Amino acid sequence: MSEHQPGAHMAAEIAEQPRVFADLVARRSEIASVAEVISARRPRFVLLAARGSSDHAALYAKYLTEVLLQLPAGLVSPSTTTLYGAQPDLRDVLVVAVSQSGGSPDLLEVTESARARGALTVAVTNTASSPLNGAAELSVDVGAGVERAVAATKTYSATLLALYLLVDAIRGGNGAAAAPLGDLAAATLEQSADAVAEAVRRYRFVDRVLTTGRGYSLPTALESALKLAETSYLAARAYSGADLLHGPVAAVDAETAVLAVTSAGRGGDAMHEVLDAVHGRGADVVAVGSGADKVSAALRIPVPETAEEVAPVLEVLPVQRVAHGLSLARGGDPDSPRGLNKVTRTR
Amino acid sequence: MSEHQPGAHMAAEIAEQPRVFADLVARRSEIASVAEVISARRPRFVLLAARGSSDHAALYAKYLTEVLLQLPAGLVSPSTTTLYGAQPDLRDVLVVAVSQSGGSPDLLEVTESARARGALTVAVTNTASSPLNGAAELSVDVGAGVERAVAATKTYSATLLALYLLVDAIRGGNGAAAAPLGDLAAATLEQSADAVAEAVRRYRFVDRVLTTGRGYSLPTALESALKLAETSYLAARAYSGADLLHGPVAAVDAETAVLAVTSAGRGGDAMHEVLDAVHGRGADVVAVGSGADKVSAALRIPVPETAEEVAPVLEVLPVQRVAHGLSLARGGDPDSPRGLNKVTRTR
Repeated sequence: MSEHQPGAHMAAEIAEQPRVFADLVARRSEIASVAEVISARRPRFVLLAARGSSDHAALYAKYLTEVLLQLPAGLVSPSTTTLYGAQPDLRDVLVVAVSQSGGSPDLLEVTESARARGALTVAVTNTASSPLNGAAELSVDVGAGVERAVAATKTYSATLLALYLLVDAIRGGNGAAAAPLGDLAAATLEQSADAVAEAVRRYRFVDRVLTTGRGYSLPTALESALKLAETSYLAARAYSGADLLHGPVAAVDAETAVLAVTSAGRGGDAMHEVLDAVHGRGADVVAVGSGADKVSAALRIPVPETAEEVAPVLEVLPVQRVAHGLSLARGGDPDSPRGLNKVTRTR
Repeated sequence: MSEHQPGAHMAAEIAEQPRVFADLVARRSEIASVAEVISARRPRFVLLAARGSSDHAALYAKYLTEVLLQLPAGLVSPSTTTLYGAQPDLRDVLVVAVSQSGGSPDLLEVTESARARGALTVAVTNTASSPLNGAAELSVDVGAGVERAVAATKTYSATLLALYLLVDAIRGGNGAAAAPLGDLAAATLEQSADAVAEAVRRYRFVDRVLTTGRGYSLPTALESALKLAETSYLAARAYSGADLLHGPVAAVDAETAVLAVTSAGRGGDAMHEVLDAVHGRGADVVAVGSGADKVSAALRIPVPETAEEVAPVLEVLPVQRVAHGLSLARGGDPDSPRGLNKVTRTR
């Protein structure tokens, strides 16, 4: 590639998200027809399989499944299949494999194996022709378009939205909470711009970052830590607000930057006691989300309010921009972090 | 308490583990009678609920469940119950709540709610009279005795062993792989002593630690990071070896200390490609486990070989000693890390 401007791909892909969301919402009926097949089979248990960023999307889908579908759900540990050859009876089980590329050999093996053992299998990918789509009985196309930056941005958020639309349709919903997300994504990028720039300045020399959130926002905290680690090489750790208080809070001090995801709703409300604890230890707190104005923080990154269950689709956007800006400020190229390839082939 | 010597409790509790394991193995029939009730109910799915260190024990049990019982399993996100009021149908579901104290309000609520919705509930605690034991239909007593240091050591390893004995008995096993663990724990502490002392010297000034493992050893990697974070305030992050290659490896450089858990068996074998990658980035690798002699590392902490599925009961012991020694070397008191209480009350 000639004269690549560092971070140009990632910036463009972040900026595309309003349109990607609007396009995906417009394709809701396509996802609803997959949901219809799933509903008819009446699964009793849902397993989600993913790696990397997609694992955070899978965790989001686990919350949706438990709360909106009232079904027990779990995240698959691919190694029980790929390393240890587990062959559980998966009749009545819905297995959802989430992978932007659809090319990860471990997810392919998990999906093939689950289907052979009676599971209803669904591939949620951004590559409709992928091996994973071939292996699964049903497919949902995330449709975010080609992503050229190695760090996933639009494919992550669009995967969340696709999973929301799928789960909502399974319960018979009409996608109402998702309908405005295209416009709200544009508003998010606009409203958060100043605070994002301030966060980049603030984190220019940071070394220790801890991200935290609860409920639906926990996946955002996990994804934020990963994004900061892979683009800016930070020692960023993520904890659920509840788990943080069970031990890791001991490592929080005045040198710790805490990025707290606090959206309006029960998850954000439950963060108040967590932030009291980290404040008491002298940490620097940046709060991001539609509930950021309700917590005590040195800097707040605003996000428009939505139904809590779709907040993760928006709240990650300003964090992507922080990761992008910080990588550039520290002399990196967020499009091509050292040592990473777009598709990672693990078993 | 008068004239408390820093770390005296934690040191004593680490040293007690050989006896604790032997006692627990001797109580196998008590656990087998709980297993009999579970087998008779023929659960189709297993959900595990825990917080903090116990969450790592629960993950270990998830691997055991999937591989040895061939049942699909998942980790509960307590907040879907406590924050969002999810009420899934849990008939045919076994819910195992793991908590050293048995006093965490969120696990209590999850267990009560699961039982009301038809689940068979089991409490695995170190406090036989706890509220959690009262809430669950069945109980397994870890029986590690009182733990005075805030950082869990013997209660963690004994919980692993209790979970192994339970799962093994459910599948009709006779606990053979666990029988020698008392003696082997003594051998572990003895054989690893020199390498532990060297690791403490090596990590005296470290700031960025990354722990990693695969398969059965992933919970050990998670527990190791937590132990180092809570006793020595390190920015320690844990990743499955597979997930590490999907992004966080970008943050690995010559300033990163990598603690790799590599036991003999498929999980340890799958770590070879992971360690090749981190070595290529100049990281300093300390390998711990019975497979440590098979990987390239700057320092190896040996552990006697066992069946792979019980290796986590032993491989955590030297890491506890590293955490203890490092905390003292850095001027802390591993018995009472700043800001931590023994029982954390989250919802």
